[in-house]
Amino acid sequence: HQGITFNFSHFRLERILNSNTSTKLVSLLGHFTDLSEEKWAVVILEKKPFTEDDLTSKGLFSVKTTVIYPATQKHIDKYSKQEVHIVQETQELYQEVTLKHIEREQFSLEWLYNILEHKKEKERIIFEDPCEETGFILLPDLKWDNKNPETLYCLALVRKHGIKSLRDLNSNHLPLLRNILTKGVAAIEEKYAVGRSQLRIYLHYQPSFYHLHVHFTYLKHDAPGIYCEKSHLLDTVISNIELMPDYYQRATLSFVVRENDRLWDDFRGDSRKAIKHD
Amino acid sequence: HQGITFNFSHFRLERILNSNTSTKLVSLLGHFTDLSEEKWAVVILEKKPFTEDDLTSKGLFSVKTTVIYPATQKHIDKYSKQEVHIVQETQELYQEVTLKHIEREQFSLEWLYNILEHKKEKERIIFEDPCEETGFILLPDLKWDNKNPETLYCLALVRKHGIKSLRDLNSNHLPLLRNILTKGVAAIEEKYAVGRSQLRIYLHYQPSFYHLHVHFTYLKHDAPGIYCEKSHLLDTVISNIELMPDYYQRATLSFVVRENDRLWDDFRGDSRKAIKHD
Repeated sequence: HQGITFNFSHFRLERILNSNTSTKLVSLLGHFTDLSEEKWAVVILEKKPFTEDDLTSKGLFSVKTTVIYPATQKHIDKYSKQEVHIVQETQELYQEVTLKHIEREQFSLEWLYNILEHKKEKERIIFEDPCEETGFILLPDLKWDNKNPETLYCLALVRKHGIKSLRDLNSNHLPLLRNILTKGVAAIEEKYAVGRSQLRIYLHYQPSFYHLHVHFTYLKHDAPGIYCEKSHLLDTVISNIELMPDYYQRATLSFVVRENDRLWDDFRGDSRKAIKHD
Repeated sequence: HQGITFNFSHFRLERILNSNTSTKLVSLLGHFTDLSEEKWAVVILEKKPFTEDDLTSKGLFSVKTTVIYPATQKHIDKYSKQEVHIVQETQELYQEVTLKHIEREQFSLEWLYNILEHKKEKERIIFEDPCEETGFILLPDLKWDNKNPETLYCLALVRKHGIKSLRDLNSNHLPLLRNILTKGVAAIEEKYAVGRSQLRIYLHYQPSFYHLHVHFTYLKHDAPGIYCEKSHLLDTVISNIELMPDYYQRATLSFVVRENDRLWDDFRGDSRKAIKHD
């Protein structure tokens, strides 16, 4: 800017305009008193990414530090950089690849049935609708402190067993989906004073466990996995099924898979076969 | 962990597992030599968000600093925290509220027509298909340095005028959409060696300008606006129109609007009217 030198010892802070705790960025409004009392300055500060120099033991104390010890290979994989791929899952690929993967892995849902049956975490329940067909339990996600509305994250677990994911949904489930939307929003509004227009309400595909559940997060909160290749708004899901009762049995759904996940090998193997058939 | 004290002066780094330059987080693998040479430790370091103390002038030099001076009200608004709301736009609300808003604002597309006509930015074109019906121009987004594939961001601008957004798309546009997908992917693969399975290919709704365009970003790059309430995968758009030619004239689409945007007032006004009509 025309060669002006900014001397921060003359910066007088008027107010903090914004602070992003995820990217560690703040924007400030103020004056440079040596330049002008009348002209505003916006100053944007952002913490720098780590460099090799920061990784000396001295630097470790000025940052938030978490230690996993002893660490297993699973821990190492979890925190390592991983290649990811996006795949386009047709209904045929769902039947032949994804569904077989889910059945083979036999993910345990014991922990979840314990919650539904009040054997575990009963004290954490925010709201419960006991109906066996359209009922659900709403509770704070474990990633949330259950306090700060700016990072609000709740989960609705449906009571009915056997609905694995989005792919199983059809018009029979519309009463269930509408019930979760209406009563979930009302419960969160009542308990946390966050209204519907400030909530992101969505399902993951693929989900992290194969029993239907719906995520409620604060709209401005960058919760993990809210990207378009992973998350499907509940309003969109309801609209799709209203337009076409078997939408989720016919649509091509994209999702992301990690390179070291067996599902990625299965998808590649299958597409190689598909190419051979041509 | 069972009361172990970790002494970082004894931490020996084996390798950096991952580094996130957006959230300023690194994960490290190593040993605590005072504890065991055989047991691995994963150490996760994350820069802390700004505190009041950081905002002294001394702290300003250890972080990335940007100054806007003199700052206008527009600058101040841009960097201020803003309330946002999610709205559910039925086809009726599109016609009565959103479309009227677009027509009223009369956003200028002169800069874009200049690109399409080779009057501006011709040297930035990565690929061009000159067909008037299904053609497009692919160029790097201005937010990208056009070098680092880890932050790849390209835009496809369709040659055909008059397609404002997703809402205008129907089965007549399938050849155009498939052409962008196929030739856009091929051009990026050839020039940047990034394949289809590592690309997020999507449209924004609402878009930032009302002339159809498609975003191509590196899948692992947290590009702005890739959230499920804003972005629609091109594969999903094509699948939806294949399932139902007038899908985008019938579906309820959700999107986010800023509280100080006139469109938010219009939506609220309209829903108040809608309530009165009941």
